Amino acid sequence: MSIQYIFELFGTCFFAVSGALAASNNDEHDWFGVTFIGFITAIGGGSLRDILLGSYPLVWISNVQFLYAIIAGVILAKVFYGPLLKLRKMLFLFDTFGISLFTILGTEKALNLGVHPLIAAMMGMFSAVMGGVIRDVLSNQTPVLFRKEIYATACLAGAFLYLGLEHLQMDRTLSFILSGLFIFLIRFVAVTKKLSLPKFKS
Amino acid sequence: MSIQYIFELFGTCFFAVSGALAASNNDEHDWFGVTFIGFITAIGGGSLRDILLGSYPLVWISNVQFLYAIIAGVILAKVFYGPLLKLRKMLFLFDTFGISLFTILGTEKALNLGVHPLIAAMMGMFSAVMGGVIRDVLSNQTPVLFRKEIYATACLAGAFLYLGLEHLQMDRTLSFILSGLFIFLIRFVAVTKKLSLPKFKS
Amino acid sequence: MSIQYIFELFGTCFFAVSGALAASNNDEHDWFGVTFIGFITAIGGGSLRDILLGSYPLVWISNVQFLYAIIAGVILAKVFYGPLLKLRKMLFLFDTFGISLFTILGTEKALNLGVHPLIAAMMGMFSAVMGGVIRDVLSNQTPVLFRKEIYATACLAGAFLYLGLEHLQMDRTLSFILSGLFIFLIRFVAVTKKLSLPKFKS
Repeated sequence: MSIQYIFELFGTCFFAVSGALAASNNDEHDWFGVTFIGFITAIGGGSLRDILLGSYPLVWISNVQFLYAIIAGVILAKVFYGPLLKLRKMLFLFDTFGISLFTILGTEKALNLGVHPLIAAMMGMFSAVMGGVIRDVLSNQTPVLFRKEIYATACLAGAFLYLGLEHLQMDRTLSFILSGLFIFLIRFVAVTKKLSLPKFKS
Repeated sequence: MSIQYIFELFGTCFFAVSGALAASNNDEHDWFGVTFIGFITAIGGGSLRDILLGSYPLVWISNVQFLYAIIAGVILAKVFYGPLLKLRKMLFLFDTFGISLFTILGTEKALNLGVHPLIAAMMGMFSAVMGGVIRDVLSNQTPVLFRKEIYATACLAGAFLYLGLEHLQMDRTLSFILSGLFIFLIRFVAVTKKLSLPKFKS
Repeated sequence: MSIQYIFELFGTCFFAVSGALAASNNDEHDWFGVTFIGFITAIGGGSLRDILLGSYPLVWISNVQFLYAIIAGVILAKVFYGPLLKLRKMLFLFDTFGISLFTILGTEKALNLGVHPLIAAMMGMFSAVMGGVIRDVLSNQTPVLFRKEIYATACLAGAFLYLGLEHLQMDRTLSFILSGLFIFLIRFVAVTKKLSLPKFKS
C-alpha cells in the first residue's frame, strides 16, 4: 500500500466522522441516517468529480475498503461521541486536513485525465467540498459553501499553488505537501481570525 | 416480454402514482409539476445507480416504454384521485411493493456488473429509495430516508438476504421472491407496529 | 467559430448573469458564492443532460471558454448591478433567450445521439431548466419548475415543434429559429398575461 492510499483511507474516515457528528446534531437521526450522511459526506465530492469527468469506475465502487473506512468512521464517532464534541477544535482540524488532502488529490487526478488546469483546480475543489454540500442539501441546511468563513476559496487557492509548482516542475511530493499545507493554513487563519471574502453586493 | 420486464413497468408506474399523489399534497402544483415529480420518483433511484456504476444507456432513455408507464401512472393518479387518497393503505402497499422489487433488481444488476456484494446491496437500496429522496429534496421536505419508520434499512436487509441465497446457489426466481417478500414484511411490520431503529445519540 | 458556438457562449454568459443576480438577492453571499451559483445555473442543465445520456466529455470540461464566459457573466453582473436590477425586464428577456436556445440545442444533441424523440424533447427541456433547479435547491428555494407561470412546459412545446419540423425535413436553421421563437413567445405571453397551467388537483 502506498502512503497516498493510506492517506486517502484516513481522509475518507475523517470525513465520515465529521459527517456523522454533523448529522447527530439532529436528535431524530437513527443509526441508518447518521451512517448515510457520513457516507455521503465522505464520497460525495470525489464521486461528483469522477462523474463529471466520466472517470469510471468510481473509487469506492471498485474498492470496498473505502466503505469499511466510512463504517469505521461512523463507529468512531459513536464510541468517542462525548470527547469528540468537547474537542470541536480537533474535529475542525480533521475536516481541514480532509479538504486539503482531497483538493490536491482531485486536482492531480483531473490533470492526469488531460483537462485544462483551470478545470482541474475546480475539480480539486469539488472533490473536497461537494460531499459537504450534498450533506447540507439533504439536511435542508445552507450549504457549507455559502457560509461565512473562507472555505472553498482556500481549496481553489491551494489547487492553483499546486498547478504553479507543477508548472515549475517541482518534485511531486514536495508540491503536494506545500499546496496542501497552504490550504490548511488559509482555512486555519480564516477561522481563527474570522476572515471572509468581500460581499458581492457592496 | 419477460415477466420481470412487466414487473419493472408496473413498479415504475406505481412509483409514479405514489410520486404524483405526494406532489399533489401541495395545492399549488400544476400538471407539469406533478408529472415531473412522478417522473423523478420513478426513475431517480435507478438512474443514480446506473450513473454511479457507469452503466449506460440508462434504462428509461433507451426504452421509451418506461416514460409511457410514468405518464399512465400520473393519469391514473388523477382519475382515481379521490379513491386513492381514501385508500392510503393501498398506496402504502404499492410503494412497499415498489421498493421491494427495485431493491432486488438493483442488487442483481450491480452484482452482474461485477462489484463487491456489499456495494451491490447498497446499489439495490439506492435504486429503491433515492428517487424518493430526490423528490423530497426538490420539495424542500425531510428526505424519506431520515423519517421515523424503518425504510432503507429494510431494503438493505432484503438485499443481504438475496446475496446469502445467491451464495447458497438457490434458484434465482425463488431467492428473488423470498428476498423481496422479506423487505415487504419488514416494512409492513415496521409501519404497523411503528418500529424504528435506535437513535444514534443515546 | 460557427454562429451556433457564439450563441452557446452568449447563452452561457446570460445564464451566469441571471444566476449571479438571483444569488445576490441574498445579501450574505460573497464573491465565491455568487460565482458558484452563476456557474451552476449556466452549466447545470447541460451537464445533467450529458450525464444522463452518457455523452462525454462534458462541453465545459473539454472547452475552458465556457468557464471564461461564466466569469465574464459574473463580472458583468457586478459592474452593471444597479442598471440590471432596474432593467428586470431586460433580464427576463435574457433568461428567456437562454432557455429557448438551450432547449433546441439540447433536443438536437440528444436526437443526434439516437434517442427516441420524446426522450430528446425531455433532454432539451432539462438542458434549459435544470441549472436553475439545482441553483434553487442549493439556495433552499422552491425550484423554478414549480412556480406559477408556464416555464418548462414552454420548452417542451418548442422541442415538440422542432421535432415536427425536423420530421417534415424543414431546413435546420429555419426550424431551429422557429422553434426557439415559439418558446420565447409562449414564455413571453405567459409572463405578461400571467398564464399558468391548470392545477393538478381540481
